[in-house]
Amino acid sequence: MASSDSPTRSPQLRKDVVTNRWVIFSPARAKRPTDFKFNSPANPNPNPKQECPFCIGHEHECAPEIFRLPPRGRDWKIRVIENLYPAISRGVPDDHPLVQAPDGELSAGRALDGVGFHDVVIETPVHSVQLCDLSPLEIGRVFLAYKSRIQQIASYESIKYVQVFKNHGASAGASMSHSHSQMLALPIVPPAVSARIESMKEYFNQTGKCGICEVQGEDLLVDASTHFLSVVPYAATFPFEIWIIPRDHSPHFHDIGDEKAVDLGGLLKLMLRKLSLQLDNPPFNLMIQTSPLQINASDSSHSHWFLQIVPQLTGVGGFEMGSGCYINFVFPEDAAKVLREVNVPV
Amino acid sequence: MASSDSPTRSPQLRKDVVTNRWVIFSPARAKRPTDFKFNSPANPNPNPKQECPFCIGHEHECAPEIFRLPPRGRDWKIRVIENLYPAISRGVPDDHPLVQAPDGELSAGRALDGVGFHDVVIETPVHSVQLCDLSPLEIGRVFLAYKSRIQQIASYESIKYVQVFKNHGASAGASMSHSHSQMLALPIVPPAVSARIESMKEYFNQTGKCGICEVQGEDLLVDASTHFLSVVPYAATFPFEIWIIPRDHSPHFHDIGDEKAVDLGGLLKLMLRKLSLQLDNPPFNLMIQTSPLQINASDSSHSHWFLQIVPQLTGVGGFEMGSGCYINFVFPEDAAKVLREVNVPV
Repeated sequence: MASSDSPTRSPQLRKDVVTNRWVIFSPARAKRPTDFKFNSPANPNPNPKQECPFCIGHEHECAPEIFRLPPRGRDWKIRVIENLYPAISRGVPDDHPLVQAPDGELSAGRALDGVGFHDVVIETPVHSVQLCDLSPLEIGRVFLAYKSRIQQIASYESIKYVQVFKNHGASAGASMSHSHSQMLALPIVPPAVSARIESMKEYFNQTGKCGICEVQGEDLLVDASTHFLSVVPYAATFPFEIWIIPRDHSPHFHDIGDEKAVDLGGLLKLMLRKLSLQLDNPPFNLMIQTSPLQINASDSSHSHWFLQIVPQLTGVGGFEMGSGCYINFVFPEDAAKVLREVNVPV
Repeated sequence: MASSDSPTRSPQLRKDVVTNRWVIFSPARAKRPTDFKFNSPANPNPNPKQECPFCIGHEHECAPEIFRLPPRGRDWKIRVIENLYPAISRGVPDDHPLVQAPDGELSAGRALDGVGFHDVVIETPVHSVQLCDLSPLEIGRVFLAYKSRIQQIASYESIKYVQVFKNHGASAGASMSHSHSQMLALPIVPPAVSARIESMKEYFNQTGKCGICEVQGEDLLVDASTHFLSVVPYAATFPFEIWIIPRDHSPHFHDIGDEKAVDLGGLLKLMLRKLSLQLDNPPFNLMIQTSPLQINASDSSHSHWFLQIVPQLTGVGGFEMGSGCYINFVFPEDAAKVLREVNVPV
């Protein structure tokens, strides 16, 4: 990184065709000092194992199970359960239009009943095992569990989008240390998803191409598998952010087949191990960026799902909150080079 | 809060006409347990006072001064200086169009030189004094310092927006504990600003009214001064978020007059004291949400500046990052009621 991290490298603003978001790349910004005294690591220790409801044998402490894999028997590998503390009420939203805001506040905005599904996917029965400890096949099965649950939910017309995400580590938003992910099925298409689809549509209309199919710059490539590429995006919002992109054009994650799921499991495992080795087991977020459930044929041509991994290395302050611009102190080419070269022990 | 916080209160999704962003209100979500062990407060202690370059007498340790108030003499009250670790290179951006992305990556997005101004406003010469300790008059002078600096910068046509913000506390993004704010003058209109102006334009076209002039629901009101209202917004993104809104329609913060600046200082002081008393001196972010510097006459009718205060009580996880939706566990009416009733000692 010596040459690219030289003090002469000037800040640059970049805008990505996928997110349509400006990011400021500013390596010098990382060098600013702080006079706050940190007495302990920002990331608290996970519970070694005590009374964890996600552990095998504690199923009765959880909210109801939706399904398990394998389907029968006590020795489950993956459980999909209801969230005991859901962000939205469990149920199928009515298909009627927006409800009005409370009296006197109609002008302030719009309101909807907070109804949908908020599920938890327990990725392993064993408390001490993390996602990157699983085999490619086992990680592939986690993806197939997401897929099955999305397919169930997709039968409800009033559910517009399913956000699959994983928070690893307390400072990344996890409240439980047992390895799990979450699925939030919403009665709306979320704003970041609409913005992404709109931006890719604009690009498609200009070029006739899908903006994600076009991602192939060697400088940004980290690794590749049979069916996927892992890259640092051109205007990565966060340092060492990684996208795993299907090589073949595909709007919906939940169309993934068994073989591709295992292949993706292998590449995700490699990326998580590289991040852990390079950045000392950082907290991270993992998101599946897919298309709205009901997508029309014309949107299919420019919408392409991908998996986004964001290690939590920096907080967000007033600048980001106010402007929607982000400051990233690692140029994507530099992050990709570092990640390409991480030596992963076999 | 007993009645409004009853367990029967169901989650609701709300969308604000100002931000055009969906927020999920879910009081039950706050009750979820965690098995992470926190060994120490999340917010580290500020440096009591040692070698702080922002303190009076240490001016030579800082980057160059732009101006001070009062203008001459050693006993300054406020200093506006260059940021020693700027996010962007100091200078006037060229007015030429976007530069191309590096070779082979043209399709991936667009790039611009990262040029503009990144300044620091030292709000007090004394290390131990925080913004809410200053008098309304003194806080008013801080606003007038922002105003003067924006007026200087506004003479450059290639600067499109000035984001004024303050990070209080390390977990809100501050790196220095000495009370200060920052101003980032950008060669672009940031995405959150464009989205806000667009959303308010749509509302104006539908109703003939400015969406912020319309904010007046009693349920959401916290306090009021001669020229300003403080409210919890209808679809507050974060718990106990507060907006301070000028009663008279005004697109640009930097048109504020001396009397209004002092009046605003008084109301901001009251809000910061209430947040500190109610939430135990939380880290917070403060942002001025104003209009692009070059605004056309038609946009003036629906663009209305305000001051946004966000206490940092919850982190952001994969759901928010992936979807752009936020989960807020306090209904705005409840937050407003709590804040209205905080008893501030005279």
